[in-house]
Amino acid sequence: MSSSDLHPFDDALALQPAGEHRFVGRTSALFANMVGPYGGMTAAQLLHAVLQHPARLGDPVSLTVNFPAPVTDGALEVEARPLRTNRSTQHWLMLMTQAGEVVASATALLAVRRPTWSAPEAQPPGGCPAFETLPRRSTQGYPAWISRYDMRFVSGGMSSVFDGVEQPDSLTRLWVRDEPPRPLDYVALAALCDCFAPRVWVRRHQRGPAGTVTMTVNFHADATLLAAQGDRPLLAQARAQVFRDGYCDQLGELWSADGQLLAGTQQIQYFKT
Amino acid sequence: MSSSDLHPFDDALALQPAGEHRFVGRTSALFANMVGPYGGMTAAQLLHAVLQHPARLGDPVSLTVNFPAPVTDGALEVEARPLRTNRSTQHWLMLMTQAGEVVASATALLAVRRPTWSAPEAQPPGGCPAFETLPRRSTQGYPAWISRYDMRFVSGGMSSVFDGVEQPDSLTRLWVRDEPPRPLDYVALAALCDCFAPRVWVRRHQRGPAGTVTMTVNFHADATLLAAQGDRPLLAQARAQVFRDGYCDQLGELWSADGQLLAGTQQIQYFKT
Repeated sequence: MSSSDLHPFDDALALQPAGEHRFVGRTSALFANMVGPYGGMTAAQLLHAVLQHPARLGDPVSLTVNFPAPVTDGALEVEARPLRTNRSTQHWLMLMTQAGEVVASATALLAVRRPTWSAPEAQPPGGCPAFETLPRRSTQGYPAWISRYDMRFVSGGMSSVFDGVEQPDSLTRLWVRDEPPRPLDYVALAALCDCFAPRVWVRRHQRGPAGTVTMTVNFHADATLLAAQGDRPLLAQARAQVFRDGYCDQLGELWSADGQLLAGTQQIQYFKT
Repeated sequence: MSSSDLHPFDDALALQPAGEHRFVGRTSALFANMVGPYGGMTAAQLLHAVLQHPARLGDPVSLTVNFPAPVTDGALEVEARPLRTNRSTQHWLMLMTQAGEVVASATALLAVRRPTWSAPEAQPPGGCPAFETLPRRSTQGYPAWISRYDMRFVSGGMSSVFDGVEQPDSLTRLWVRDEPPRPLDYVALAALCDCFAPRVWVRRHQRGPAGTVTMTVNFHADATLLAAQGDRPLLAQARAQVFRDGYCDQLGELWSADGQLLAGTQQIQYFKT
């Protein structure tokens, strides 16, 4: 299969084994952000290294990715090292390097999930218009990665004018799926967790330097839920709790088309004003 | 100063430099949990290594701690390595080992905070009775670390009978401070973020094997807010979003006595039923 037959996400994600615990890849123009690649793709590549490592045990339960420096367009290397393997859980350390310098660091927890008492507690956002009834977010004039997703804003979207009028909150709700559609898996879910714009833009209706410095993804989906979701849109929601001295948090949720919580995600974002 | 003059928290926290990027310490019976030490103390020790490292730049913004294996009572070693230092931010990797095996792994982001536009968005829980009007949680029959905190439950407490009657939610609200009182700093705040009981116990009113496997702390407090808080009690809140196949999440908030968000925290907890 030539690379042109691949879905753009899989093409950008690709890593080649390069020795024990090592993989090589590259950034993809398809997922370019304003500077370097979309952070969600960097997170996905770090997780992808773990999931294709021969020592892998189980499925992702939690992933934390730190972004110490901009990833430069071009070649990259991922070291994925199992720190500890237990009977049903496995802890990983991942480092992405370019020219010997760390550009992203991460830890991950994998586990073999076993059926237990299970119950939801949070509820999906109610009263959201259906995906089909909403217009797709414009991709014109935006970095390439925006075109890799079909985003349809319910509220707190980025299509509004940046008029500098401060909003009462930074809540965003949107439907989102890969474009073209692609059956959901753990790496795609990790990437989707970074689909939200900086909270300060939404709160202040004003754009300025801002970005993710650390992101945690808690995977609640098991293989059955991923299969049930397929390539349908997810309902995504994010909000900040506080903005202070150049940093804010972001709490996010990604819900299945059937109203199941597939992932929870938290970020720290920097901003300048 | 002899170790008996130290506050129990500082006594348990202590690490000695042992070469480049290396520190040695020990677990403390004062912070014993059912198996090994209180996870909050392990998190605090990992952060403490960074904060006393000669290369430290700035104050904590985010900390993620993974718990791959029980920490055994006795000696421990912490490796704290700066992965990348920028002009105003610094990314760290920390590993706690015992007998050469990794028992905890962590990453941290430090930053020099600069004044910017700042604003709260989440509100502190309302209608909570004052700390002084509530009874202190019983410490009798509980692991030692419970006695290191003065906890006063507003709701979702652990003092209720484990009658097996499932509750509508897992929300816990409590006032909590170090016992004896100790001025709040970053390491104490990290430790306090792990003060909540497993969410499944609260939701199901039933105790069973359960514990934290990964915890992230997002620090919103700067030095001014920490100083303003002093040794007063914090208002702490936690809840789960979903329980599924042996794992649940926990979203937590720690509020100052003046209603400022000092830290947000997220966990993944395992449970057996």
